[in-house]
Amino acid sequence: MFITLEGGEGAGKSTQARRLAAALTARGQPVLLTREPGGAAGAEALRGLLLARPFDARAEMLLHFAARREHLVRSIRPALAAGATVVCDRFADSTFAYQVGGQGGDPQLWAALVTHTLEGIWPDLTFLLDLPVEVGLARAAARGEANRYEAADPDFHHRVRLAYHALAAREPERFRLIDATLPEDEVAEAILACLPAP
Amino acid sequence: MFITLEGGEGAGKSTQARRLAAALTARGQPVLLTREPGGAAGAEALRGLLLARPFDARAEMLLHFAARREHLVRSIRPALAAGATVVCDRFADSTFAYQVGGQGGDPQLWAALVTHTLEGIWPDLTFLLDLPVEVGLARAAARGEANRYEAADPDFHHRVRLAYHALAAREPERFRLIDATLPEDEVAEAILACLPAP
Repeated sequence: MFITLEGGEGAGKSTQARRLAAALTARGQPVLLTREPGGAAGAEALRGLLLARPFDARAEMLLHFAARREHLVRSIRPALAAGATVVCDRFADSTFAYQVGGQGGDPQLWAALVTHTLEGIWPDLTFLLDLPVEVGLARAAARGEANRYEAADPDFHHRVRLAYHALAAREPERFRLIDATLPEDEVAEAILACLPAP
Repeated sequence: MFITLEGGEGAGKSTQARRLAAALTARGQPVLLTREPGGAAGAEALRGLLLARPFDARAEMLLHFAARREHLVRSIRPALAAGATVVCDRFADSTFAYQVGGQGGDPQLWAALVTHTLEGIWPDLTFLLDLPVEVGLARAAARGEANRYEAADPDFHHRVRLAYHALAAREPERFRLIDATLPEDEVAEAILACLPAP
């Protein structure tokens, strides 16, 4: 099973990905906990480049898919083939939300990249940790680790949120919308409640 | 006018690109001499990554087009718009020859990337500096600067050469096949002879 966590800045994706992976591990399931961009050596090198400097919107989309391709081939696909559950903090939906929704990039390029680089590997279940942009940005600021995306103007983040909602509406059977303003424990419970019984 | 130089290892592309740019400059034409991967800040950062380590074939194709997109947007397009002649050492044909021909990558992905990232900017004239693989590799070895591609097996380079010939056959009006076994001065003359009179 391939599970992804998606959402804007400050939504708590990394924390919840860790908690979900720990809960599945406690059930005795083999789990790969990973994140994007990154999750494989070449992809981590690209992550550094992407967070450090701006690229043209289309170039940036290609870089995200290049990192994703490495991640898919070296980590995700082998783990799924070995019977593990993959829990991934961000995947292709993030590229749609940020580079198409936020930056106004080309949705056709995104679709072509999904078709030609993912070879049909697609999340079975995606948790969209949703919260108002202002709340998320305040949380990210309090965390004190503003990256290039977190520093973008609030309008950018509103477009990202709208794009996520559009994706969720397009594939309602895959997405679970989670209220990320709830306390951390309640979010973790809401996520576990969506999983098949152990 | 957008002019590219293409060919396998040791064909003399960089030398001939410099000589061509110098000849055009001597005629009083504004010229941008550039190369791929590279030619813009973000693209040079990617060049370092690409020459240093292997990536999955599809990831590598995306990285080349990401670097190309940066190069196109920041350097090539502005130079063409300003009326300069652009002389570029390698362009999209290289990605076809190396990643599709040499590495067996997906030609449909290559075509989709050309369509969605180059916005119709395509070379007016391409010099294919052609020579037997063994001659080119011996020259590159004598130069003593073997990169990851030059270290690949000869079969790889034979496939690259065949792919270049296929591209030239597909667009005969754009390609000029140049015998790169000739002395450097004769190659430079052959190239200049193909240009419109000053």
